[in-house]
Amino acid sequence: MIEVLRLGHRLGRDARISTHCGLVARAFGAGGIVYSGDRDRKMMDSVRSVTREWGGPFSVRHGSFRSTIKNFRGTKVHLTMYGLPMEKKIREIRKKRNLLVIVGGEKVPGELYEKADYNISVTSQPHSEIAALGVFLHEYLRGRPKKRFKHARLKIIPKERGKYVKANSSD
Amino acid sequence: MIEVLRLGHRLGRDARISTHCGLVARAFGAGGIVYSGDRDRKMMDSVRSVTREWGGPFSVRHGSFRSTIKNFRGTKVHLTMYGLPMEKKIREIRKKRNLLVIVGGEKVPGELYEKADYNISVTSQPHSEIAALGVFLHEYLRGRPKKRFKHARLKIIPKERGKYVKANSSD
Repeated sequence: MIEVLRLGHRLGRDARISTHCGLVARAFGAGGIVYSGDRDRKMMDSVRSVTREWGGPFSVRHGSFRSTIKNFRGTKVHLTMYGLPMEKKIREIRKKRNLLVIVGGEKVPGELYEKADYNISVTSQPHSEIAALGVFLHEYLRGRPKKRFKHARLKIIPKERGKYVKANSSD
Repeated sequence: MIEVLRLGHRLGRDARISTHCGLVARAFGAGGIVYSGDRDRKMMDSVRSVTREWGGPFSVRHGSFRSTIKNFRGTKVHLTMYGLPMEKKIREIRKKRNLLVIVGGEKVPGELYEKADYNISVTSQPHSEIAALGVFLHEYLRGRPKKRFKHARLKIIPKERGKYVKANSSD
C-alpha cells in the first residue's frame, strides 16, 4: 500500500501542481493522496473525475500534515532535493510494504526531516515534486505499477500513431 | 544530446507547469528546452536563474512547433498517453544519440503523431507531462544523468536529515 502526502497546498496558485501530483500518484500505483494546506474542492474533483473515468480505486482527501504523519503505520519517505540519493536507498525501501511518500509544497516544515524515516533525493537538483514523485514510484515498483484499474469507463489501447480510447470496458 | 520541446505554452495558466518541464529537462540531463505557444519572459527567467545558480549548460528558448521539429536532426520522441508503452521501445530509443523529446500542452496538433519517430506512453494513463518527461529521461539515461553541472554557484551535499548546500563551488 502506497499513500502520497502533498504538503501545503495553496488555493489557486497550486491547483494544477497538486492535481498533477494526484494524477501521478494514481497512475504510478499509489492508492490515494492526502493533501495538507488549503482545502480545495475543485482540485479534488479533477483527480476524482479522472479516477471515475479511468478507474481506481484511488482516494483523495484533505488532512493535516502532523496527524497524517503521526497516524500512518508504515515507512515515511520524504522526497527532498536535500536528501540521500534515491539510487543509494531504493533497494532498502523496496523491502518496505506500507509507504507514505511525502512531497513538498513551497515551504516544508523543518520537523519533517526528523519525522520521516527517509529523506530521499531524486537527482540532488532543484526540479519538480511531480517528477520526483513519478520517478520515485516508478523505481519503487520497478516500472511495474498495477496494470489493471477497476471500474474504468475508458481505457487506452496503445497505438504507434494517433489515439485509440476504448469506452465502457468491462474491467 | 537531448533537447525538449514543450508545446503550446499559455501565459499565466501554464507558467508553473512549463517551468517544471524546464527544470526537469535540466535535472534529468537534457541540454535545453524549446517551448512553443505564448512567449513568456518570466517563465524563461525562472529556468535560467536555476541554471545560473545550480549550473549548466542549459538553454531555454521560444520556437515554433513546426520549425523546431522540421529543423531537428535526430530522433523525435513524442510523449503521449496514447502511444506505445515506454518499456516496449526504450531499448531501441536508447541507441539513438540525438533526441528531441516532445511533451504536450493542452492541445496537441494531430500532425505531431505523424511527424514524431516514436509516440511513447509512460503508463497509458492520464497524469502529467512533467512526470512523463522525468520518468522517460530517467529511463533513457538509465538513471544516470550527467552528474556534473558546470559553473554552479550552489551544490547540494546529500544528507540523511536537514539541508546542506555548498556555495561557491569551484565546479
